[in-house]
Amino acid sequence: MSVNMIRIKTIIEHLATISSTPGELTRLAFSREDILAREYLLDFVRQHDLSIRIDEIGNVIIRRKGEEDNLPAVAFGSHIDTVVNAGKFDGPLGSVAGLEILLQLCEQNIKTRYPLELIWFTCEESSRFNYATLGSKVMCGVTDKQKLAELRDKQGNGLKEALADIGLNFDLVEQAKRDKSAFKCFFELHIEQGPRLENEHKTIGIVTGIAAPIRCIVKIKGQADHSGATAMNYRHDALLGGAELALTLEQLAIQAGHSTVATVGNLMVKPGVMNVVPGEAQLLVDIRGIHEVARESVFTGLQQAIEEVGQKRGLDIELQLISKDPPVLLPDNHIQQLIKVCQHLGYSYEIMPSGAGHDAMHMASLCPTAMIFIPSKLGISHNPLEFSAWQDIEAGINVLQNAVLEQAEVL
Amino acid sequence: MSVNMIRIKTIIEHLATISSTPGELTRLAFSREDILAREYLLDFVRQHDLSIRIDEIGNVIIRRKGEEDNLPAVAFGSHIDTVVNAGKFDGPLGSVAGLEILLQLCEQNIKTRYPLELIWFTCEESSRFNYATLGSKVMCGVTDKQKLAELRDKQGNGLKEALADIGLNFDLVEQAKRDKSAFKCFFELHIEQGPRLENEHKTIGIVTGIAAPIRCIVKIKGQADHSGATAMNYRHDALLGGAELALTLEQLAIQAGHSTVATVGNLMVKPGVMNVVPGEAQLLVDIRGIHEVARESVFTGLQQAIEEVGQKRGLDIELQLISKDPPVLLPDNHIQQLIKVCQHLGYSYEIMPSGAGHDAMHMASLCPTAMIFIPSKLGISHNPLEFSAWQDIEAGINVLQNAVLEQAEVL
Repeated sequence: MSVNMIRIKTIIEHLATISSTPGELTRLAFSREDILAREYLLDFVRQHDLSIRIDEIGNVIIRRKGEEDNLPAVAFGSHIDTVVNAGKFDGPLGSVAGLEILLQLCEQNIKTRYPLELIWFTCEESSRFNYATLGSKVMCGVTDKQKLAELRDKQGNGLKEALADIGLNFDLVEQAKRDKSAFKCFFELHIEQGPRLENEHKTIGIVTGIAAPIRCIVKIKGQADHSGATAMNYRHDALLGGAELALTLEQLAIQAGHSTVATVGNLMVKPGVMNVVPGEAQLLVDIRGIHEVARESVFTGLQQAIEEVGQKRGLDIELQLISKDPPVLLPDNHIQQLIKVCQHLGYSYEIMPSGAGHDAMHMASLCPTAMIFIPSKLGISHNPLEFSAWQDIEAGINVLQNAVLEQAEVL
Repeated sequence: MSVNMIRIKTIIEHLATISSTPGELTRLAFSREDILAREYLLDFVRQHDLSIRIDEIGNVIIRRKGEEDNLPAVAFGSHIDTVVNAGKFDGPLGSVAGLEILLQLCEQNIKTRYPLELIWFTCEESSRFNYATLGSKVMCGVTDKQKLAELRDKQGNGLKEALADIGLNFDLVEQAKRDKSAFKCFFELHIEQGPRLENEHKTIGIVTGIAAPIRCIVKIKGQADHSGATAMNYRHDALLGGAELALTLEQLAIQAGHSTVATVGNLMVKPGVMNVVPGEAQLLVDIRGIHEVARESVFTGLQQAIEEVGQKRGLDIELQLISKDPPVLLPDNHIQQLIKVCQHLGYSYEIMPSGAGHDAMHMASLCPTAMIFIPSKLGISHNPLEFSAWQDIEAGINVLQNAVLEQAEVL
């Protein structure tokens, strides 16, 4: 069974034009453009014997019956909402790939034993409500109504208003939760959003797990002094304390191994002028990994470094934990399946973690879940420069198709 | 000859109440309050046989005739303008000390061979025009009219308007320039603005030279990447490059010795968010010292570190020089004189550079110049918490008085 690359390219390119802002691609969840994109895609679906359901949070579920339709579904999908000024592949790739698989099956009249479900999760990006993977969180029951009621977008509108805009009722939102028995497994194809596949010259990334971040803020208090009049040995320079911690974090992440990463995203300095020794500094810290022990070793190392640097430099350093979610490990039998598929199709592959979060990480709590990556040029995403080669896109869709059909058992 | 500490304290405390902003001390140069403060002080002067001259830039010159009045003047002074939300000693100390010396001579009818000149330099602080030591620069001819014409305050007013406000004519401003032949020597008493004297438990600082800064901006370009999806070895983290340079600068300054200091006053990061590896960073660098070779070694070391860090981390780092003024060394014979005065009066002293700039650094281009420091509590200045003990103030004024009278030759 092949894929129609002309159709895929046409659909992805057309989706990239459905934007609320001319000259760029911005398609926030629940916006008019989000629905326009959904309807554009559903026009393809409506030409075939496929059922369409919009659940209570706005996820789109397209079902193709299996010959044994009471069996759990083989599911796959991604999202079609975007960040502000987005690239055209993050989300649409996996969504359009899933659509292509269903269209091929219908067009070629191929039957499967298991039913198939293509899911376009709503509001995967945090750009609308500063809350990522909303649709899959609700489907998987990993959030609660209270939290959802508190969400606000930049205009101050809540999720209630956003749902009403697309004809949904916030009061019913919890009915979107699915049961484990509904799914046999779930696959998501996505661009890598990092440079590893490109650098390693590999076509396919087979994801071992999805790293969850430990996020914290490190607040450093030193003493603001005259930059000319204060000898080096009398200083309590908050910026230098922050610099030491940032470099220590880098070393800790490298030493921890297991693809653990640590980032200081910002170092804010007060007063921040040329002629004053910095009196205060604040670091935004993000530590991620799929190996919980390795990730924890970085966090523990940071706490120890805070002690040492504070004492050495006479700084008062406080660590404020923002969030600490457990990483999600994906099951080995699906990894092994994907390896075999790649070998069968002749694609080079890399076994690797996902540093970014995806809807798949919540689906993993409902059913065995797997993720397939394709290379992102220069690792760039969430940016108009985001680019994946059509050849790699074809490879990714082929891997997804093979894995899905194997699980669904073509008859 | 003693000093009247009650009068000194009364004057300094009263000056601290002459402010444009209630509840704090803000007395910008050329403001109504600056003139009120000047007139308050001049009321003391007018009770004696002292001549008063306001020069074309607004410096106040109070002259007491010498017995050989055509000899060059023994000069001393400081400034009475302040920063926004200032302390009460930075400037007023040396200005009031000089007034006290003249008042004592007049009251006790003591004659000197050399004429004396007390100078209250105008606009020493950069707070009005973002241009420090304006009055002494004009008096010493180290600036030009073109540069002065370009000065603007935060309201957009020029020096021309500011001078007109106090009855002066910008067109004549260059007439304020004095000739070397006018001065035998110049002394400035000032608070230290650093913690060295307090930490070393010394009463008097004898200044060897005034450090001038090398100021530069270091611009670092790396690559903004997803903080979760980008492995440590693929990163080009601009913040980490900046952190290494900041810590290297600290080491370079310590190694350079000769009281050389180096400060990174700010490290600005783009995009500066939790989940993106920093793509850009910018450092504000200030390197100071009175030892030009030592200071240069720090600058050269920074340039070398920029090469190394840039290469190692794959960063594009650019150094932009903002200013590089030569440090001012003060003559040894005056340092020796002040040592003898301290020994004579029984005050502990520290031979030390001034990290901050002062009017004395320009006067040094006209005549042999010396500076006397007294301790600043915790090294704090330009802040309401600025504090010097009255006992130390008395010591400082005694040293100034003894040095001035020795140079002026009491008859």
